[in-house]
Amino acid sequence: MSKRRRLRSEVAYSTADRIVVRGHDLVDLIGNVALGDMAFLELKGRLPTSQESAVFNAITVTLVEHGMTPSTIAARMTYLGAPESLQGAVAAGILGLGGRFGGTVEDIARILQTRLGAAPLEADLRQVARDVVEEHRSAKRLIPGIGHPEHKDIDPRVPRLFEVAAANGLSGRHVELVRLIGDEASTALFRKLPVNATGAIGAIASELEIPWQVCRGLAVMARAIGLVAHLQEEVADPLATEIWSRVEEEAGEQTREE
Amino acid sequence: MSKRRRLRSEVAYSTADRIVVRGHDLVDLIGNVALGDMAFLELKGRLPTSQESAVFNAITVTLVEHGMTPSTIAARMTYLGAPESLQGAVAAGILGLGGRFGGTVEDIARILQTRLGAAPLEADLRQVARDVVEEHRSAKRLIPGIGHPEHKDIDPRVPRLFEVAAANGLSGRHVELVRLIGDEASTALFRKLPVNATGAIGAIASELEIPWQVCRGLAVMARAIGLVAHLQEEVADPLATEIWSRVEEEAGEQTREE
Amino acid sequence: MSKRRRLRSEVAYSTADRIVVRGHDLVDLIGNVALGDMAFLELKGRLPTSQESAVFNAITVTLVEHGMTPSTIAARMTYLGAPESLQGAVAAGILGLGGRFGGTVEDIARILQTRLGAAPLEADLRQVARDVVEEHRSAKRLIPGIGHPEHKDIDPRVPRLFEVAAANGLSGRHVELVRLIGDEASTALFRKLPVNATGAIGAIASELEIPWQVCRGLAVMARAIGLVAHLQEEVADPLATEIWSRVEEEAGEQTREE
Amino acid sequence: MSKRRRLRSEVAYSTADRIVVRGHDLVDLIGNVALGDMAFLELKGRLPTSQESAVFNAITVTLVEHGMTPSTIAARMTYLGAPESLQGAVAAGILGLGGRFGGTVEDIARILQTRLGAAPLEADLRQVARDVVEEHRSAKRLIPGIGHPEHKDIDPRVPRLFEVAAANGLSGRHVELVRLIGDEASTALFRKLPVNATGAIGAIASELEIPWQVCRGLAVMARAIGLVAHLQEEVADPLATEIWSRVEEEAGEQTREE
Repeated sequence: MSKRRRLRSEVAYSTADRIVVRGHDLVDLIGNVALGDMAFLELKGRLPTSQESAVFNAITVTLVEHGMTPSTIAARMTYLGAPESLQGAVAAGILGLGGRFGGTVEDIARILQTRLGAAPLEADLRQVARDVVEEHRSAKRLIPGIGHPEHKDIDPRVPRLFEVAAANGLSGRHVELVRLIGDEASTALFRKLPVNATGAIGAIASELEIPWQVCRGLAVMARAIGLVAHLQEEVADPLATEIWSRVEEEAGEQTREE
Repeated sequence: MSKRRRLRSEVAYSTADRIVVRGHDLVDLIGNVALGDMAFLELKGRLPTSQESAVFNAITVTLVEHGMTPSTIAARMTYLGAPESLQGAVAAGILGLGGRFGGTVEDIARILQTRLGAAPLEADLRQVARDVVEEHRSAKRLIPGIGHPEHKDIDPRVPRLFEVAAANGLSGRHVELVRLIGDEASTALFRKLPVNATGAIGAIASELEIPWQVCRGLAVMARAIGLVAHLQEEVADPLATEIWSRVEEEAGEQTREE
Repeated sequence: MSKRRRLRSEVAYSTADRIVVRGHDLVDLIGNVALGDMAFLELKGRLPTSQESAVFNAITVTLVEHGMTPSTIAARMTYLGAPESLQGAVAAGILGLGGRFGGTVEDIARILQTRLGAAPLEADLRQVARDVVEEHRSAKRLIPGIGHPEHKDIDPRVPRLFEVAAANGLSGRHVELVRLIGDEASTALFRKLPVNATGAIGAIASELEIPWQVCRGLAVMARAIGLVAHLQEEVADPLATEIWSRVEEEAGEQTREE
Repeated sequence: MSKRRRLRSEVAYSTADRIVVRGHDLVDLIGNVALGDMAFLELKGRLPTSQESAVFNAITVTLVEHGMTPSTIAARMTYLGAPESLQGAVAAGILGLGGRFGGTVEDIARILQTRLGAAPLEADLRQVARDVVEEHRSAKRLIPGIGHPEHKDIDPRVPRLFEVAAANGLSGRHVELVRLIGDEASTALFRKLPVNATGAIGAIASELEIPWQVCRGLAVMARAIGLVAHLQEEVADPLATEIWSRVEEEAGEQTREE
């Protein structure tokens, strides 16, 4: 038998008469701490300052909802088949928060955190930004967090997010670097490539020292809320059957006729 | 071709320069509304009063974390196999919030909402409670939201939740009925069967007029937060490999020896 | 510390130089056993006879594909968001195999297995069928496995499935009972309610002594195959973006205009 | 409104009296085609030759089962919380088939298919192999499909898989290249790095011209079968509660004492 490593978790534990979360009795949190601050406590191991709370709530609120996305459509289709398992429909919706969306929050946070982690404090951030752009350009890879297919000029969420971060003293080197990356990318690639919402959120989450490996988790936890709201609407006024019948009819039509 | 029904969602929509959630421009919500209130807005279509906010945050905060549960273990095992897809690990954890846990929030909310929906305002709630208990007893079914395998005497979260609801004027007939069901069940079945946390939450969510069909969604959205925190710990200090190797070794041992 | 129960699995184990599945070295199975028979071995703990193989393959083949269903649409939408995680897209598709589809295989198998398990061998199966119909009718519940919204007269898969079962000596009391339930339901409810494909499969799976609790698993394992094929098509010629843009545009239109 | 693209799927369609899969009436397939060949039909659009059938069944059979893995543990934990949703437990198990396991089938297939797609027919495959090894070595990345933490000397499945492929005339340049990559890696890195099962399967799937983008789908569809078998055992003789209570107790112990 191999040598055993001790199992240990510091997130929370429960006994017959207590649940303790990050050192706080859950009973003391109920009614005293709001959901966003509870999420901060879970992730950071301590309650937020009021500044941190404002900023953390701002980035998670931004991620809750984006209308009728592939993720909400998947959740609604799944609910149609398994209405007894709301959790399955939410899970289906979450599964679409991968490389093309939630993953970009993670990707830009990784870039910012690893570059700034390796750079001396006096480093020229514009040069760091140029390096990032150049490396992606030569590898023909998209820079995450920059540009937006729909909001071509400016993503309206971005200036607001940066404003909230600055107003709360949480607009530091990560935010500066992501902006410089947007600038340098626009220059190098001859088109407007402003920071988009995932870029701003990846930068601000990095200011809050949330490790890049869980930054897409911010999108996942927030979007879970939005998915429940979409499913509530689906319960009352289902769209899935109509979408299904239209798609099925059209997709099979030509094949049927041959 | 069958007649088309119009697709329409009132949750949210996005255009090139705006995202509108329940009638609010998302930009106006960012920095002004906290995550719990955003969840309320998503579900109810309007922002909460401060009383509703206190109560809604209390019930969702309660559902965020319960230590090392089957759900968090499943998420950690999934992360081991697919660390590039944090969303998959969260989804795996959410999938365990079914009949044995999240489902009981839904089940008790359904009982409370359908009984009180059908009962006249002057109905004797103790008699309604007796009927619920008797119907479950004769069908040999467990009453959801009542009793707890671990917290035998009193679930410490319950009095706190009821206190917050009462202090904010949201302790009405649903809360009264769930308490009476606990009382009557204890009498009829000759053992202590107090309201447990899922029972209290199902009742309070009903006070907030959240439809029973999405009440397990409260558990799902809250637990998504807790799962991200467990996965953050798993990134830094993985338990999954150790759990796996212990289980695999022991499970196959006897069979191997035969 | 509570007393420990030994962990033991008899499905399979692996060592440094062998993987043993249900007592067979995996290396002896590779190239000698087909996928359907491997599935039978996994579930039943032994390889099938040629009759069992024919019947088991017939029911699982039936479940692989049903065109553009909510399940395949959900998988395709999920793939759009997370193309790097094919497993997530298949999982999303599987999650829709709940109460409205896969669950009916389970539900009818449960009815057949519990009724025949409790009935003496000489029981009048027509009377058992009448009881099932009457109990569902008085509780106003649909009888699973009977009737079909699309294939109103006859589900073309059903006579073929029953033919294969009979030709292989596996058309016993479960098949007889499901047919009688269809007959009695049609008589009692004054409309054609023939056995549908899920009813036939639930009955035939019961002839193979597959426990009802895992009968929806037959749908899940089979449909996983179909989902991979749909995703292969999605890789080469994506439909998800078009479905998304149509739904998003129409769903938000009216709301935007108000 | 943007210009519409026609939705079209060539996998399958259903009408009131037929389900047509890849041009075959499903009724003609039931009882005549085995599950593995049905999977081949789904993916390739035509039924396999007997050689292709032997090889395709061999690789999928290999992927069905690997004992008590993180994936099966996740499925069992999920079933504990949501026993009414077997599909959710299978989905949870599938979600772990990511980068560390199923993803390697995809990764090696991608390497083999893109290298051989770009190389002239007369290319020196040993040189191609050397390039692959050198590129991974200089980027400090693991080569997928090579080496195995447990089966250090030889993965017992590999020679058998290659034998089946050769016996059926399907051991071509992809198989040759993966072997050469194993050879060259062993030489370059001064330790035994033989082709492992995922490497062999990725190569043989490439011989069958299955696109690399869906090669991890072979693992997903096969493992879905194994997961149902594990859940069947979990229904009859649950391990999840015992695993849960051990992990929960140990993980919280030290923290509780502090």
